[in-house]
Order: sequence, then structure tokens, then C-alpha cells
Amino acid sequence: MFETAELNRKISKEVYDAEEPKLRTALLEAQERLKGAKFSVIVVIGGVDGAGKGETINALHEWMDARYFDTHAFAAPSDEERERPPSWRFWRVLPAKGRVGIFFGSWYTDPILNRVFGETGKGAFEAALQRINGFEKMLVDDGTLLVKWWFHLSEKAQAKRLKSLEKDPATSWRVTKADWKHFKMYDKFRRVSERALRETSTGEAPWFVIEGVDHRYRTLTAGRDLLERLAARLDAGPKPPPTPPPRVQGDPKTILDTLDLSKKLSDNKYDRELERSQGRLNLLWRRVKADGRSAVLVFEGWDAAGKGGAIRRITPALDARDYHVISVAAPTDEEKARHYLWRFWRHLARAGRFTIFDRSWYGRVLVERVEGFAREEEWRRAYNEINQFEEQLTEHGIALIKYWLHIDADEQLRRFQGREQIAFKKYKITHEDYRNREKMHDYELAANEMIERSNTEDAPWVLVEANDKRHARIKILKTLCDRLEKTL
Amino acid sequence: MFETAELNRKISKEVYDAEEPKLRTALLEAQERLKGAKFSVIVVIGGVDGAGKGETINALHEWMDARYFDTHAFAAPSDEERERPPSWRFWRVLPAKGRVGIFFGSWYTDPILNRVFGETGKGAFEAALQRINGFEKMLVDDGTLLVKWWFHLSEKAQAKRLKSLEKDPATSWRVTKADWKHFKMYDKFRRVSERALRETSTGEAPWFVIEGVDHRYRTLTAGRDLLERLAARLDAGPKPPPTPPPRVQGDPKTILDTLDLSKKLSDNKYDRELERSQGRLNLLWRRVKADGRSAVLVFEGWDAAGKGGAIRRITPALDARDYHVISVAAPTDEEKARHYLWRFWRHLARAGRFTIFDRSWYGRVLVERVEGFAREEEWRRAYNEINQFEEQLTEHGIALIKYWLHIDADEQLRRFQGREQIAFKKYKITHEDYRNREKMHDYELAANEMIERSNTEDAPWVLVEANDKRHARIKILKTLCDRLEKTL
Repeated sequence: MFETAELNRKISKEVYDAEEPKLRTALLEAQERLKGAKFSVIVVIGGVDGAGKGETINALHEWMDARYFDTHAFAAPSDEERERPPSWRFWRVLPAKGRVGIFFGSWYTDPILNRVFGETGKGAFEAALQRINGFEKMLVDDGTLLVKWWFHLSEKAQAKRLKSLEKDPATSWRVTKADWKHFKMYDKFRRVSERALRETSTGEAPWFVIEGVDHRYRTLTAGRDLLERLAARLDAGPKPPPTPPPRVQGDPKTILDTLDLSKKLSDNKYDRELERSQGRLNLLWRRVKADGRSAVLVFEGWDAAGKGGAIRRITPALDARDYHVISVAAPTDEEKARHYLWRFWRHLARAGRFTIFDRSWYGRVLVERVEGFAREEEWRRAYNEINQFEEQLTEHGIALIKYWLHIDADEQLRRFQGREQIAFKKYKITHEDYRNREKMHDYELAANEMIERSNTEDAPWVLVEANDKRHARIKILKTLCDRLEKTL
Repeated sequence: MFETAELNRKISKEVYDAEEPKLRTALLEAQERLKGAKFSVIVVIGGVDGAGKGETINALHEWMDARYFDTHAFAAPSDEERERPPSWRFWRVLPAKGRVGIFFGSWYTDPILNRVFGETGKGAFEAALQRINGFEKMLVDDGTLLVKWWFHLSEKAQAKRLKSLEKDPATSWRVTKADWKHFKMYDKFRRVSERALRETSTGEAPWFVIEGVDHRYRTLTAGRDLLERLAARLDAGPKPPPTPPPRVQGDPKTILDTLDLSKKLSDNKYDRELERSQGRLNLLWRRVKADGRSAVLVFEGWDAAGKGGAIRRITPALDARDYHVISVAAPTDEEKARHYLWRFWRHLARAGRFTIFDRSWYGRVLVERVEGFAREEEWRRAYNEINQFEEQLTEHGIALIKYWLHIDADEQLRRFQGREQIAFKKYKITHEDYRNREKMHDYELAANEMIERSNTEDAPWVLVEANDKRHARIKILKTLCDRLEKTL
């Protein structure tokens, strides 16, 4: 893979001086067009130390409009980053549509270095590469133009380059002990990188290996590649919507129909169980927290199913310092300009926090699907994207519990009417709520498929019979406690 | 001050049960109105341990619409927070307009505890209180409704409360060693708090001391206070714009006229000086960075004065990992929903970073003033707000340098025309640029006043004669190096 980048390719000063202004003009023009386009560009930069990554970025900075252009360098993660799943630090700086983000050091750095230095085995390495493919596919599916450059030097060329940088007092600081340490591992690093590049060179996000010996060659080559990819993408325009696959006529019977909505709890029993469960939750949560672990709760279900009420039976068992209730409403323009999961990643709390989502990322496959806000291909691929997202949460040790609160249509109507009688609950009922009732069956099919597709062992759905609020609340508290107990 | 909160006030269960639903309805209604209003609400919660702060927040959570309501608890700062000025952690969670933010632990916590435990002297404590007044005035001026509650217990009541919490297995965890440690300092804590509250109880942001013995009393009292303040504010509507003070007819001569725009540098000398200065900058920056210090550069000046070009002469001396160029464009909706300084606070980088602002917070007193985007009272108070902001940066050890790049009208026209000839610079010229030329004198007066008001010792303006780009760039590099040298 790297052989073609060891040809000692050079570009003369004359050619460079003639080409550079042309390239620059074209890049700026392409960037102008990008500003109005509905996608972002991510340039991932990896490669051998001393192969000119930094200089290339400097050149791009000089050529392009810095107002729509950010470089993010990833050194050791901060404590706020360490307390979240590893990809959080990339998510937090994902460029908005119309912008270019250069990622200097990226999601490749740790998997490669960990493998080179023997900190992870082959299996974990391969798993990390598969995860990267999933992540990049998600970005590309969302419209991101993903450009990946690997700056390469042969072993000899790298030694020469490091020595010459070291000799010059103006550049000697750039050669660190880590560089020489990495150099000693050159062969291993090369093998591991090659494997990583092969595994992650996909049709839509291929790696481009750039020979790093000659600064004019590598700069011009990188710039041209960016221009070509960007121009091709701009010329292609938005993808035509694919013919929707025939709608599966769902069996009217769904998993929700299997719930026994007659389940009830007496007042007395409720009071006793509530106190007991809240006490238990309180103790358990303190242990989870002391462990530096977090909890994420997702509440989905019908309007008026009692999500808010259930949440308010959980929070009194917690310290106000520890929890956050995130109620998911319309996205802001900064959120709209990015992948739909971005708005949930940004709410992910630090270690030892309890985050409750009142509605969640599942909106993608529920309301956005039923109301047509997301195209069929978008919500269909969301199942995988959501599973990947949740896998990262649970692998990070976050206790994730998802609740579906189920009531039947009659009970819902009773509650709507009841709310209209109580002044301080009136604000909760709008015309839209009644309108949504007409689509109840569509929602039910969507919920059924959602549960089917996202009910994983580590992130299970708890289906809650919620016609009786007392039963629902106690079931939620108890299953929450069981889950936290299992986490410990 | 606290005597009136040691009266052992109570509210009976009957009264509470009758009042609570009414209060709740009224609070929800007020919150509904708030959503459409153009201001935010911040509730600062302080006071004695065990006085029911957490329970009160829980009650508010239960009463109000959690979708527009966030509680932020501030424990020990994270490394990302420690690497910025102390108030960054509050700025980052400032609520948007239409929302309520509860600050549990706030900008009062550290000044008070540091004073109680003798870590700061009287002078530093008083200075911190003055700074708080400045900060709160800024929020209030911007329209924020600032509610400050101090939950109080007498020494006897606190001892009783802590003991009873400790005795009950369900609540014993809530009493920490720190609580008892604080309790032993009760008198000192009381004296220091009293001083803090007196100094910071201003007409528009008064403290309200709430007796914390009885949970029904304190909850209802807090809720009612929030309701009253919120309703009063909503009823008052937007403040009428004050009669603008008579426009000072500025002397047409400004400080910019004193600049000698004929200053020039030959090509040869430029090349030599450029290399030398970049080398010097590189070495200096590495020392500043090794010190864990940051640099913030501000570039202001006429269109086409060469800001971008100057920045591109600085960045090659830096590692792409270290710097960020922030080009200030139109604010996003999340930015528009907050104080105008929020968008700059959020860009403040971690330790060891070099941030270059291509246009900055000074837009408030330049373009926003001249074009009428900010009301006169708004841009007039901005001088103080900006000085306070910059003071926090420099006190945190950030090297702050501000450049004004000055060219005359003829030179500007030449450059506009020149840019139109060069394809890759064309994008930089718009109709607006020509339109802005007509207001050049207004801008000049605004710039003059800006420099006069914000040229402080720690955050000086460097006025750059920029008709000759070579002279300008070298002057910028040299003064930047001098400044960094002084920082060390």
C-alpha cells in the first residue's frame, strides 16, 4: 500500500509557483460554493512523524477562507473527555454544514498506537477498525465529504527528515522524544497502519496516501485532492432520493399488544413500594456514582403516558447536583447543521451524573419517521446508528435504561380531558396532541419496529404498562434499581 | 441581616396543601409567558449546609416545565475549567432567553469559602465582590432576571438539622465531613457571608434570605419569590429605550490621524526581518506554552487593511496544533439568545493555545454602534463590560494583544480595486465593502473612542500603520514578540 508513496516524487519550484495560485483560486471558489451547500467536509490527517502534516495544514490555512475552516488537534484527552466515551471529543467539534474541519490526530490515532505498543490485541484492534467504519459510514450517509490523507515516508526518508529537522535550531523543537520512540517502531507502525488503512478504505471514504518527502509535492498533491473531491461532490449535487422500498405492511398486532394494561397497584401498596424503591435507588445510585459511573435513562411513549410523572418519582431519590432532565424539543440551528445524533452527544454528562432524556434520539425512528421529517433511508439506517451510539455508552460503563410507557387510546383520551380540567396541567395539551392520536397506529408500528431493532442486551427496552400510573412508576423504579445493581 | 431569618417561621400542612397547587399553576403560567419573552432567568442559590437548598430545587423541578429549566451544580472545576478564567464555567452554561437556569453553587462559592478558610485576605475578598457586582450588572443590563436566594439556619438549627439528617439512614449520606467542617466555622462563615450579601445586594439583583428550618415555609417562600419577581418583570414589559444622550460631536481629529502612514520597509529588509521575527516568535511561544500560558490576539481595523495577511505571517511560526483563527461572522441563534460576550467566552481555548480573533468583541462598539445594531446604552456600557472581560483574561495569565490596522481611504480603494483583479481574492470584496466606505468617518470616531476607553496597561492596543503591508506585518510580529517576552 505504501510502496507507491516511496517513489521520491518531487515538484520543481517553477511548477509549484505556476500551479499554486491556480489551485488556490479554485479551492477558494469551491469553498464559496460549499458555504451554500448542505454538507460539511472533514479532512482526517494521519501518517508518519515528520512527513509534513503540520506544514500541509498551514498551507491550507493560507489558501482557504479561515472563516469556514477549523483545525482540531487531538493530544491527550482532558478529564472532561476521559469521562465520556472516546468518540465524544470528535463529536463535540464536528463541523457544521458549509464548513471544513481538519482533524489532526483522529479516531485512528489511539487504535493504531495502542496496537503498535502492544496495549491492545489483534481482536480489539480489528473491532476498533470496524467501529471506525461504522462511524465514518454514518458521517458519509449524512452527507459529510470525508477526505482522509496519510502522509508517508520510508524508514530511510523519515530518519533523514527527523535528523535534518533536529539539526536546524529553528526546527529542532519539532522533533520530540516521542517521534524517535515511534521511529524505533517504524516497521510495526507501518504494518499496523497498513492494516488500518486497508480495512477502512471504503468506496465513499477512501484513504489517499501522500508521499511526504518533498514539501512542494505533498502540499500541491493534498490541495489538488481536496479540490477534486470537493468539486466532484459539489457538481454531483444532492443525491436523488432512492426509490423507497415497498412499505412493509405490518401485522396489525405489535409487541405493545402483548402488554397487560389491566395491571394495577393499590394506593397503599404504591406508597409503601414508592418509599422502599426510592430508598433503594438512592443507595444504589450513590454506589454507582462513587464508582465514577453514570446513568442514562430514556423515556419514550405515548403523549400523556406519564413520562414526566415517572421522572418526578425518580429525581427525589437523587441529589439535585447529580441529575439533569433533558427534554428533547426542536433542534437549534447549530444542531440542525449537524448529524442528528450530535445534539445528544453534546448533552452527554461527565462521570457520576444521572441524565434523563424525556424523549430522545429515538425520535428519529418515531416522530420523524411517522411525520415524514426524515426520509425513509434516513430513519432506516438510524437503527444501526443508534445501536452504535448506545454501544459506546454502555462500553464506557454507562448504565443505559430505556423505557417505553404504554397506554391505550381510551386512557389517553381520558388523560387529555383530565389535563384540561387542571389549570396547571393545561399547558401540556395542544391541538397537536389530538391530531397525533389519528396516527396512533402508525406510531405503534414504528414503536414495534424500534423495540425489535434496538432491544439489545446491554441497552434493553423496558415496556411499561402505564394505564395505571402507580403500577408504571413502581415498575420503572424497580427495574431501574435492578439495572443499577447489575451494573455494580 | 440574618436575624430576620431566625424566627423559626413555619407553614402548616393545611396551608401548604392549599397554597401549593395555586403557586404551581401561577409559576407554570409565568413560565409559559417567559418562553416568548426576550430575557432569561438565573436563580443563584447559596446558604448554609442543611438549609434545604437541594429540596427547594427538587420542588421547583416538580412544579415547573423541565423543558425550559436547567440546574447547574458547581463542584470542583474540571481541568478544562481550571485552564480558563474562573468565570468561564458559569458563562458556558448561561441560559438562553426564555429559559431558567438554577445555579447551585455559583460565583459566590469560592470567594466566600476562600475567605472563611483564610486562603484570601480582606482585600482580595472585597475585590472579588466588586467583580461579582460588575458581572451581575452586566447580566441585568442585558435583560437577565437575576434572583438570588440565601438559605439560612441559625447555628443551633444547623446543628439540629445535620444531626437529624445523620440519624436517619435514608438521609445520613447527605451529611459529609465537609458539612461538619463548615459547621465548625459557623461564626466565620456567617460573618463572611453577611459581608458578601451586603456588598452584592444591589437594587436590581438583591439577595433574598430564606429561613431554612421548615421545609414547607422555605419551599413556598422561594416559589412565591420567584413568581413575584418573574411576574413583575413580565408585566413591566421591555424597558422603554432611554432618551439618548446628546451625541458628542467628536473632534474630527482622532488618534488614528497621528499615525504616520508613510512608514515603509524595503523588500530586502522585510524578508530578513520576517524570518528573524518568526524565528523569535517560535521560540518565545514555545516557552509561553511550556508555562501553560495562552495567548489571545485581536485584530481590528479597516476592511482590506491586511488583517488576514498579518495573521498568515504569524501562524507559520506556530504549530498547527496550537493555534486557532476565529473569524467573527454573524452570530448563530444560540449566540443571539445570550449576552453578546457569550460567543467569545465559548471560543476561549484551553491552556497553551494561541487564539487569533479576526474581528472580535469590539464589533459591539464599532460596527454594531455605527450601523445601529446595538442601542446607544448597549454599546456605551460595552466598554466597561469588555474591560472586565479582558481583565479576567489577563489575570488568568493570558497574553492579550490587540491590533488596530490603519490605512487611509485612498489605500483602501486601491486595495479593493486590486483584489477585484486577482481571482482568488475576489471573494473578499462585496458591495457592502464599498458601502462601508461612506461611513468611514463614523467608524473612525468609534475606533478613536474604543481605543481611548479600552487601552489598558495589561491589554494595550497596538496601532499599526498599515499602508505598507511589509511595515505592518513586521511591526505586528515584533510587538507580539515583545509582549510575549514581557509575559514570561
